[in-house]
Amino acid sequence: MSIIEMIGAMAKDAKEASRGLRRLGRAQKDLCLNLMAKKLLDCQEEIIRENQKDVTKAREGGLSPAMIDRLTLDEHVIRGMADGLMEVAALSDPVGEIRGMWKRPNGLQVGRVRIPLGVIGFIFESRPNVTVDAAGLCLKSGNAVILKGGSEAIYSNIILGNLLREALQETGLPPKAVQVIPTTDREAVNILIGLEEYIDIIIPRGGEGLIRFVTDHSRIPVLKHYKGVCHIYVDRYASLDMAMEICYNAKVQRPGVCNAMETMLVHRHVADDFFPEMVKQFRDAGVELRGCPESVRLIQDMRPADESDWPREFSDLILAVKIVSHMDEALDHIEKYGSNHTEAIITNDYNRSQRFLTEVDSSVVLINASTRFNDGNQLGLGAEIGINTSKLHAFGPMGLEELTTTKFIVYGQGQIRG
Amino acid sequence: MSIIEMIGAMAKDAKEASRGLRRLGRAQKDLCLNLMAKKLLDCQEEIIRENQKDVTKAREGGLSPAMIDRLTLDEHVIRGMADGLMEVAALSDPVGEIRGMWKRPNGLQVGRVRIPLGVIGFIFESRPNVTVDAAGLCLKSGNAVILKGGSEAIYSNIILGNLLREALQETGLPPKAVQVIPTTDREAVNILIGLEEYIDIIIPRGGEGLIRFVTDHSRIPVLKHYKGVCHIYVDRYASLDMAMEICYNAKVQRPGVCNAMETMLVHRHVADDFFPEMVKQFRDAGVELRGCPESVRLIQDMRPADESDWPREFSDLILAVKIVSHMDEALDHIEKYGSNHTEAIITNDYNRSQRFLTEVDSSVVLINASTRFNDGNQLGLGAEIGINTSKLHAFGPMGLEELTTTKFIVYGQGQIRG
Repeated sequence: MSIIEMIGAMAKDAKEASRGLRRLGRAQKDLCLNLMAKKLLDCQEEIIRENQKDVTKAREGGLSPAMIDRLTLDEHVIRGMADGLMEVAALSDPVGEIRGMWKRPNGLQVGRVRIPLGVIGFIFESRPNVTVDAAGLCLKSGNAVILKGGSEAIYSNIILGNLLREALQETGLPPKAVQVIPTTDREAVNILIGLEEYIDIIIPRGGEGLIRFVTDHSRIPVLKHYKGVCHIYVDRYASLDMAMEICYNAKVQRPGVCNAMETMLVHRHVADDFFPEMVKQFRDAGVELRGCPESVRLIQDMRPADESDWPREFSDLILAVKIVSHMDEALDHIEKYGSNHTEAIITNDYNRSQRFLTEVDSSVVLINASTRFNDGNQLGLGAEIGINTSKLHAFGPMGLEELTTTKFIVYGQGQIRG
Repeated sequence: MSIIEMIGAMAKDAKEASRGLRRLGRAQKDLCLNLMAKKLLDCQEEIIRENQKDVTKAREGGLSPAMIDRLTLDEHVIRGMADGLMEVAALSDPVGEIRGMWKRPNGLQVGRVRIPLGVIGFIFESRPNVTVDAAGLCLKSGNAVILKGGSEAIYSNIILGNLLREALQETGLPPKAVQVIPTTDREAVNILIGLEEYIDIIIPRGGEGLIRFVTDHSRIPVLKHYKGVCHIYVDRYASLDMAMEICYNAKVQRPGVCNAMETMLVHRHVADDFFPEMVKQFRDAGVELRGCPESVRLIQDMRPADESDWPREFSDLILAVKIVSHMDEALDHIEKYGSNHTEAIITNDYNRSQRFLTEVDSSVVLINASTRFNDGNQLGLGAEIGINTSKLHAFGPMGLEELTTTKFIVYGQGQIRG
């Protein structure tokens, strides 16, 4: 069977499975999720054995220690995957929720009911535990999923996929609800994103290159974000102690993630009071600063930022810094260079906080809190499959509800249209 | 200026305008909508004069009388456009609605607030009054819109666009909130659907060819339906009088539209009682029937359906007919040939009605009512810009709410992530 035929058949099976999933109640799905968790724990040795094949290959291929670390499954990571599945089982089921029902003058009762999206194509790189997280969220929300992981994790993904399928089978659910594409052939991505007839949504997670490729070539709607160029604006009415704590947290706590701060905007009025201490803290933490001309004049040895630094996701201990003379300048900067991901204002001024909330066009906008809170768990969604910055039904972190849509249901008594 | 530069500049202007629209309150938008209506009425003669240029060209080009009829703007149609704008003004504003707010254990208050999508690229064929309808809905929902109409309506679209812009200017709104692409060059569509940086959503309305082209080439998410292959399933427990009235309405009242019935599925148990009278009614109305082998045996002179008839949108007085031996066969048929658009069941059996609602994967599913009700106005959304059968935030008719999404807002008191 060619790879085109194989993936075509998988997609067809997924669509057929999604039909069975529509009918499932919560209890059946939770039973399966908990069995999936048990199987991961019971088969740890097998998982680790297969994972070691990937790790060995990665070492031979000269992957970086950080990459190998992300690839490695040990007891601790497997425990985490199992816990994740059980947490998803404990979340309420979004499917079947009635989102409003109203009566029309002709007596028709019209309502919206929440339904699964259908079939999700999930394309990701590197970390094999994402396989399990994504499968759990898709199952709970009633979706079939086809998983295309990175080639470096192929052995790990296949064994995980097999265990998940066993759990589906043993609980009487459609075994094709979760399918791992068992090939490292890159052509697989290309084929998958063309199967519009069977797949409803594509979610790519990984580097910007992967995501651009998928967006440029997919016929299927893509939920994704390219990058997170997150800003914090320290207003002239900010509590400076709070501003320092939040900015430090947003840059330093985990600089490699998409909701870390990349550019700090500081109102001129507070620059003299704020900068020396803030810069000291950042420098003590090893953060390299790149500043606008005015901040370079203010702070010794600050490297001047160039134009390419403003729209950049450093994903590292590097921070761009700009002094603004009024709030509009901060808003203009965010509009021009931001990525619609996450932005925060630090202020004690009521009107400015409200203006920031209204005018900043980002998936999460915060007042007096760290950008690091843009995360499904942190915002109370329970879990997330990713963050979307396209303006679709899911703008921001995507939890269970964001893996569903609604359809209209109509109760009539024989109404016809005149 | 090349066409690429021109459309690029329009898209950039639209994005800038959308920033201004975000801030607008309802009163400002309604004022503008009402002024737009007034301008249409005041400038009727000018509109009709420009429209006549299109009509003359269409006649010379040999367009069908039906097409010319759709193209023609007279006092009655202009009155309808103006009324439509005033109706949209009277609808409530979806922007700013808080969709839930909750408190996290760390004290963060998290909520979702409804926001405009941003910039909408609207591509449509033929009827110039759609220009005004779409502009009104986009403005009310806070979106900037770029309109690419059919080349046959270019003079009409340009004059309408000019009048709408005047109203925007005179009420102090961003004049680039509504822009008509002033060219008949087909390359314009191609350029528009590549401008991912500026445009958030593409909505194509027209023939399946146009919609396939846009979907295949767009980098921007597309809200669309290819076709409406709508089914009515007459169950064995149907009230047959009601079934006849609904089926007749769904096929005959307006056969050319997407929510008309294309295939009627009839339970074998009622076929003998239902068919003779139903067929007589259809034949009196000039409906051509194409039947499965069993219905062909039952009804004299019925043309046998071939495989290509089942997935077809006839858009005409033609109906495919199939006798099924149980409800599962009806559900299987809909799953295989349906277009996820609109499906209805006629039954007095409670469990079957509920099963149909749950298992049919269509944007609107009805019990004992005509498929013709899949329409934003009829379902109580006030108005619609189109119907979407992709599984995105808008599955079904798209009214004002479907032209928005939500972002997260977070009220903090200095929270950082541990």
